[in-house]
Amino acid sequence: MMKEIRVGLIGFGTVGKGLAATLLQQKDRLRQRVGAAVTLKRVADIHVKSLPEEYCGVTLSQDAGDILTDPEIDIVVELIGGIEPAKSFILAAIAGGKHVVSANKALFANHGREIFAAAVKNNVEIGFEASVGGGIPVIKSLKEGLVANRIEAISGILNGTANYILTQMTDHGSLFAEVLKDAQAKGFAEADPTYDIEGIDTAHKLAILMSIAYGLHVQIGDITTEGISTIEPIDIDFAREFGYRIKLLAISRNHGDHVEARVHPTMVPEDHMLANINGAFNAIEFTGDTVGDILLYGQGAGMMPTGSAVAADVVDIGRNILSGSVNRVPALSFLPEFIGEPRITPMSSLTCPYYFRVTALDKPGVLSRISGIFGQHNISIKSVIQKSRHADEPVHIVLMSHQASEADVIKALAEIDGLEICTAPTMKIRILVDEQD
Amino acid sequence: MMKEIRVGLIGFGTVGKGLAATLLQQKDRLRQRVGAAVTLKRVADIHVKSLPEEYCGVTLSQDAGDILTDPEIDIVVELIGGIEPAKSFILAAIAGGKHVVSANKALFANHGREIFAAAVKNNVEIGFEASVGGGIPVIKSLKEGLVANRIEAISGILNGTANYILTQMTDHGSLFAEVLKDAQAKGFAEADPTYDIEGIDTAHKLAILMSIAYGLHVQIGDITTEGISTIEPIDIDFAREFGYRIKLLAISRNHGDHVEARVHPTMVPEDHMLANINGAFNAIEFTGDTVGDILLYGQGAGMMPTGSAVAADVVDIGRNILSGSVNRVPALSFLPEFIGEPRITPMSSLTCPYYFRVTALDKPGVLSRISGIFGQHNISIKSVIQKSRHADEPVHIVLMSHQASEADVIKALAEIDGLEICTAPTMKIRILVDEQD
Repeated sequence: MMKEIRVGLIGFGTVGKGLAATLLQQKDRLRQRVGAAVTLKRVADIHVKSLPEEYCGVTLSQDAGDILTDPEIDIVVELIGGIEPAKSFILAAIAGGKHVVSANKALFANHGREIFAAAVKNNVEIGFEASVGGGIPVIKSLKEGLVANRIEAISGILNGTANYILTQMTDHGSLFAEVLKDAQAKGFAEADPTYDIEGIDTAHKLAILMSIAYGLHVQIGDITTEGISTIEPIDIDFAREFGYRIKLLAISRNHGDHVEARVHPTMVPEDHMLANINGAFNAIEFTGDTVGDILLYGQGAGMMPTGSAVAADVVDIGRNILSGSVNRVPALSFLPEFIGEPRITPMSSLTCPYYFRVTALDKPGVLSRISGIFGQHNISIKSVIQKSRHADEPVHIVLMSHQASEADVIKALAEIDGLEICTAPTMKIRILVDEQD
Repeated sequence: MMKEIRVGLIGFGTVGKGLAATLLQQKDRLRQRVGAAVTLKRVADIHVKSLPEEYCGVTLSQDAGDILTDPEIDIVVELIGGIEPAKSFILAAIAGGKHVVSANKALFANHGREIFAAAVKNNVEIGFEASVGGGIPVIKSLKEGLVANRIEAISGILNGTANYILTQMTDHGSLFAEVLKDAQAKGFAEADPTYDIEGIDTAHKLAILMSIAYGLHVQIGDITTEGISTIEPIDIDFAREFGYRIKLLAISRNHGDHVEARVHPTMVPEDHMLANINGAFNAIEFTGDTVGDILLYGQGAGMMPTGSAVAADVVDIGRNILSGSVNRVPALSFLPEFIGEPRITPMSSLTCPYYFRVTALDKPGVLSRISGIFGQHNISIKSVIQKSRHADEPVHIVLMSHQASEADVIKALAEIDGLEICTAPTMKIRILVDEQD
């Protein structure tokens, strides 16, 4: 008799439909690769009254409990998103000895610790490949492909919506608000885009990557997060003039006894691969002490790409069920007893080059006054451009600094923005340096 | 007592040293991730008389047989390269019930079938991640991360030496022979560079990727292979003028009942990611029906990057030994009974746009005669540039075609090159189209 891996799916939204379609379309291929049928047995979704007819063998229910209590189900796939009831469903599945696959980055970044501890206690697996980078096998690559590496740094474009907006602004010189509205109309951005544009979704994903890269319990609160809503077309133009593209990056660097953890708009040198990741695509760069730089690129979201990643987790766990090797690879890459508490580098001690755009009245001596303040705070300026758009309007003075400390920058900007000749807060964008250590 | 995975290494050259250094440097990290010591127990190399003192616990021998017959060794790592004696060592290891890890792409592309059959028979594993793409986890991503995909296409820069030479030619306008000589002096190219520059190494790697992508026994003889030694700076300049970069690509497309298998210099649109992979780096793009396009990038060779991939295979197999799940993932992605014989698309039936550089005497009517011949063979021309360098010298007539069939191209070029006004064979370079099907 054919062996079978039996899957119960909670949540028949976009990604849920993607998983169901994937398991159906790839049925024969999965049998030929796994040596077993990987079968969707049950779907639960409170909003769904009937399934398309191609899923005639699948039992639909409005109650997730029907999946959680079905002894036939091996793997529970949670694809409803959000914290509750997703968290309760997952914990119930674990308590019932079922393996779990989920794409829920918000949940793992907020409550991963509790969930992974419960999974260890109950000797079940948690698959979360689809929580970062959509269909890109980023978590498997990090946990297994780079197993013989100390991860030195992570830099990534992890949110397709934010990258789509920045790409549109760059290509068409449009305003942030216009592009966002257009993206919402086209379905590329959600009605409430806060998580995407304010970097929160990116921070969730960075917390997950840092946890497995370093063996640390990193959570959302550890990540300093700034979004892209304050970026103006003029910043994108100046960036281009200096040879940079502005990207919303997740950045972490491993300093051994402390690790950086930050998400913010970043000036990326135009010849860097991350500068050339456009539209809704994602890319993640890992620097390993053995392997050097590795970059993984692909669609970071969407029904089928995410379905591909969820299905890969289902297969991975299914293979462990079949071969009796559950938890063959620890969920967080390190065995639970070796996972430590993170010490996060305070932002004030961060050092990097900066872009500053000061908005000031076009009075004699203004440049000397502003550059004087930077100098007093140990911020050395590499180049300056001053441009006025119209007579009688404030001018933009753009300064690119050498390496400067964030603490000094904050003090200098407080002083500069307090000048009566400055008519708007100074825009500050950190610049990516590849070999910052 | 601490569990242990015991490794015997045959070949202490560059990559062998990289593996030894990796296992030593990552010792604690691997224990924390694997829950067992991964220990280099033995090294065999006919040329090595003593090991550096950091390997004081490792037994050195000049005889590979000492490893093959040691009952304590779990995994034999073959890093001598070439066909023999590597093949005999690997088959002996398999016959002795030992698992094997190797980076030997020439061996797998020529004798993979025999080796994988022997491994199945003896229920041992063969790890070959390091045979393609150096430290990039390309094989693991393809076999496991993209398990729920029909692979539609593979496009890759798989040879760092060839890519380094083309990059140097592009950046400095240098001649192929000059760059090659310089690369040899710097150690970036081997004394005998044939495999690298003639595309053979790339073809070995493509054969391996195609085998696991499609579940077919693809071997080196199935791949049409052209190298880069005929590329001239003028072709690179014309490519740039039309918005392309010339790259040595491995290309395969899956047409269902037949598959393309080719390695040749290719015009890549300058906004394509593969156009921007420079120097000795590698990049591999897979198109999956579920996931869409995925690109993996990193160092495709070198002591430590390749060591990282070999170590990842050792860990992967080690985990299967520890959890009793040997051959949890089939070596060639599909179970042996589902691996078929390839039907390779004949090159004559290939269709793509072409770049042609005709070298002809600057006589009246020459352009009309040449374009007339293309027209007679159903080759429709999209744009033309004619340039002469000096009076009395032959001119270069560059023509970019729409989609044309290779069979027609061969006939047209035979006719054109037979014209007495043509003073040198016409240069032909295929153009990459992303959605060619």
